[in-house]
Amino acid sequence: MIYLDNAATTCPSAVALARAETFLKENFYNPSARYRGGDAVARELRLARERIVSCVADPAAFEAVFTSCGTEADNHAVFSCAKRGNAVTSAGEHAAMHQSFVELKNRGVEPRFAPVTRSGTVNEEALLSLVDEKTSLVSVVHVNNETGAVNDIARLARLVKEKNPRAVFHSDGVQAFGKISVRLNDHVDFYSVSAHKIGGLKGTGALIKRKKTTLQPFVFGGGQEGGLRSGTENTFGIACFRFAAEEKIENLKQTCSRLAGFRELLWGRLDRSFYTRLSPEDGSPYILTVSAVGLRGEVLQRMLWDGGVVIGTGSACSSKKPHSRVLEACGWDGKTLDGVLRASFSSETTEEEILRAAELMNRAARELKETTG
Amino acid sequence: MIYLDNAATTCPSAVALARAETFLKENFYNPSARYRGGDAVARELRLARERIVSCVADPAAFEAVFTSCGTEADNHAVFSCAKRGNAVTSAGEHAAMHQSFVELKNRGVEPRFAPVTRSGTVNEEALLSLVDEKTSLVSVVHVNNETGAVNDIARLARLVKEKNPRAVFHSDGVQAFGKISVRLNDHVDFYSVSAHKIGGLKGTGALIKRKKTTLQPFVFGGGQEGGLRSGTENTFGIACFRFAAEEKIENLKQTCSRLAGFRELLWGRLDRSFYTRLSPEDGSPYILTVSAVGLRGEVLQRMLWDGGVVIGTGSACSSKKPHSRVLEACGWDGKTLDGVLRASFSSETTEEEILRAAELMNRAARELKETTG
Repeated sequence: MIYLDNAATTCPSAVALARAETFLKENFYNPSARYRGGDAVARELRLARERIVSCVADPAAFEAVFTSCGTEADNHAVFSCAKRGNAVTSAGEHAAMHQSFVELKNRGVEPRFAPVTRSGTVNEEALLSLVDEKTSLVSVVHVNNETGAVNDIARLARLVKEKNPRAVFHSDGVQAFGKISVRLNDHVDFYSVSAHKIGGLKGTGALIKRKKTTLQPFVFGGGQEGGLRSGTENTFGIACFRFAAEEKIENLKQTCSRLAGFRELLWGRLDRSFYTRLSPEDGSPYILTVSAVGLRGEVLQRMLWDGGVVIGTGSACSSKKPHSRVLEACGWDGKTLDGVLRASFSSETTEEEILRAAELMNRAARELKETTG
Repeated sequence: MIYLDNAATTCPSAVALARAETFLKENFYNPSARYRGGDAVARELRLARERIVSCVADPAAFEAVFTSCGTEADNHAVFSCAKRGNAVTSAGEHAAMHQSFVELKNRGVEPRFAPVTRSGTVNEEALLSLVDEKTSLVSVVHVNNETGAVNDIARLARLVKEKNPRAVFHSDGVQAFGKISVRLNDHVDFYSVSAHKIGGLKGTGALIKRKKTTLQPFVFGGGQEGGLRSGTENTFGIACFRFAAEEKIENLKQTCSRLAGFRELLWGRLDRSFYTRLSPEDGSPYILTVSAVGLRGEVLQRMLWDGGVVIGTGSACSSKKPHSRVLEACGWDGKTLDGVLRASFSSETTEEEILRAAELMNRAARELKETTG
């Protein structure tokens, strides 16, 4: 199969799995255990923590709280930081952020949603106009998971802090971490990341936090993760996360430039009489979202599966709704929203796969048009 | 190494790992994806859910919400069910429950702690006297993780419901699930379980719930787990959990009777001039907790590690505190609390290991007594 749904999840890295295997065998000990085996695992956890932080920030200034997924990291940041007044986010967020903001209403905090541009970036002026002296949290996704649009979070964080220095700034970095070059500046307080989008395992994520920020506990118990997230640490998942992140970071620049080429190659080969491009040219090189306007994306998706190409129809996480909330917010009409296909790449993607996928996408659209039109 | 700290964590089952391996390779798809590969993984998840529920209850009446660990399952139950009035638990709970109850105070719910007996079971009369018409939740651990004492949760749940039919009854079953015979009756509403205590992986647990009960979401986002616990499902961890549970359940009775014999064999071989028994005779066959009164448990633990025996000193999850809160609540004095060692077994434990461990435990106590006394 040609797998082009890497924004939904990735195939775990064989290298990371092999390097982490010891945590399933001789080093399976509980890192809280006070004998030498437990200590050794605890040391490995500390190292993994530092290495993962190093991928995007200075470990002298930032630290990581391991979580069970990116969604939990988002929830942790929102419910800890948005305790009063209002909280501001964009209309282009992943469901993990969007639904957490919706829940804020039940907890006495006013959620505010800034509009997005056609490409999926937040409207900067509109966002800032929503920030006032009562804003406790501002959260803007780094890479829009449905279009690949990249928000300039360093700039947004700085502008937010200029307007309200007490507001906390968070970003969901799940589609950016280990994929594009990221360096968190002094204005970003929290950053959510996930393992399974970069060759790690489902069930592992982290909330990267500036050391000076305070966070409320999200899970209470034995006091793991500095008391912020109790529960026996997922040592194997965390080790896989570290090794997968190291693997990705090592070749990040080459991967980005190769995939940017592939993204344009795929778009260049798609038949424009069927496909409209929804992804911006300056977005993430890992995502090309298009629409076969007037056709049904999920039907094309199934035809493509049968032809050997695995492709998304938007966020796998919100696949129960008929239309994408995010793409709707971008301003696309119903016929365009019906036909959405998201091709998302990984460092493993090859040029041959791209060419073959383009061919099959064109064929599927042609066939579907003929049978339905 | 002779591993006798299975109540802290277990070595993952090679059989379960092998059976689940496909979820790291060809079946790595996101179960929310709408193509055939995603559907297949989603089907496997449903099957795992049913199989795990079947281990302790009728899947027609109960269902499972997968969580990242037993601690999260406990937190989910507490913060969802204890919304008003008071909530009652025992003084013999794991930190996951105890700290959640402590947090309830900050959320406007009065936590009430019923005393425990010397063996670690809850004092039934005292527990019931704390239940009144304002009680929203009662939670009692099934198997005390520090002594192995077993609470009769079926009976307690029935008595609680007789006193207040609107009170929700939860039990932390982490040290019972897949270890002793469990059948949830109509009065138990929620039951927390964990994978890594029975040969599954760290990072996977479940909250088993009666279908008729309502639960608030714990993590908001893409709507996984019926909207109660969003985040991409940890498919590999869940599959390992299922296969490990099936493996344990298949031989449960034989394992229990063999381990009950081993527990008494170990106790029979220990030198009574050093060791006092803290575990009851009618407790879990998987746990024998003793104290080398007047000696330091953690020193003995390190000596035993050097001799090739891995043993606990109580709950690994609360190992940062000097004395065990639970054993203190059982009424043991400081000198006894200092010397605690917890030997905990698994289905892999052998008679030779027990005999060797007894020998080394006696030798370590003798040596330490000589050097310190």
